Amino acid sequence: MGMEERAFQDYYPDEWSYCYGCGRLNADGLHIQSRWDGDESVCIFTPRPAHIAIPGYVYGGLIASLIDCHSTGTASAAAYRAQGRPMDSQPALRFLTAALHVDYLRPTPLGVPLEVRGRVKEIKGRKVVIQSTLSVEGQVCARGEVVAVQVPDSLGEAP
Amino acid sequence: MGMEERAFQDYYPDEWSYCYGCGRLNADGLHIQSRWDGDESVCIFTPRPAHIAIPGYVYGGLIASLIDCHSTGTASAAAYRAQGRPMDSQPALRFLTAALHVDYLRPTPLGVPLEVRGRVKEIKGRKVVIQSTLSVEGQVCARGEVVAVQVPDSLGEAP
Repeated sequence: MGMEERAFQDYYPDEWSYCYGCGRLNADGLHIQSRWDGDESVCIFTPRPAHIAIPGYVYGGLIASLIDCHSTGTASAAAYRAQGRPMDSQPALRFLTAALHVDYLRPTPLGVPLEVRGRVKEIKGRKVVIQSTLSVEGQVCARGEVVAVQVPDSLGEAP
Repeated sequence: MGMEERAFQDYYPDEWSYCYGCGRLNADGLHIQSRWDGDESVCIFTPRPAHIAIPGYVYGGLIASLIDCHSTGTASAAAYRAQGRPMDSQPALRFLTAALHVDYLRPTPLGVPLEVRGRVKEIKGRKVVIQSTLSVEGQVCARGEVVAVQVPDSLGEAP
């Protein structure tokens, strides 16, 4: 299966689109975008020059942010898949992060695109666990695991 | 013991002061500052309006960033304390994050100061483990644990 054109985040209703990490309506935000690539989800992101830890390397908080938003987006997309529903169908399925874990395996070089790849480790009830890697030119620099929880319908529905 | 005036990050040598999270020389960064308050370290930070997750609540990636930088700063300060040395003495002791874990216990309200409090769970060789809470008006919204590792002297020394 190839890469899909429309990002998971493009399907979020407006009130869910102000997230600093992935909201298309947040003018100052990172605009993280995630898509299926077969059974994996993928996000390509090039950090800004300001996203520095020590000279030449990417800030760990940005890496955590990428893993966070990519994983909640993947959780949402996986929940739709599990229900056999397109992402623009109702009711909307939205997820928040309950727990985030990142292992920083090696310094991540700044100035090149980062690739975050996620896969579903577990999907059960309102809980989805996503495991991910963050790589540069095929070398894994960080690993993440996010426990995402579906928010109550009253918060998750489009207006 | 009362709060100290100078922040841990004020002691970082210049080449360590470009961090997006806590570098005083990063014009676009968050400028996270940490200080001892007795046996605990404390960081007060008021998110920008853009640091939104869903309307009214703080972005989880920012929370991860606060916990990350506050913890590495605390690790550094704790290492100096353990050696009985002031933070402006040489050689400099600098730490990077090896692992970051955050549990998001409840949504964190936006528009008010956040208080991150850290304490040393373990200090052994080049490794320091910091546990922290992030609170709003006394209510804990997130818990963090960071494994920080001292970088090699060649990277950690002032120029």
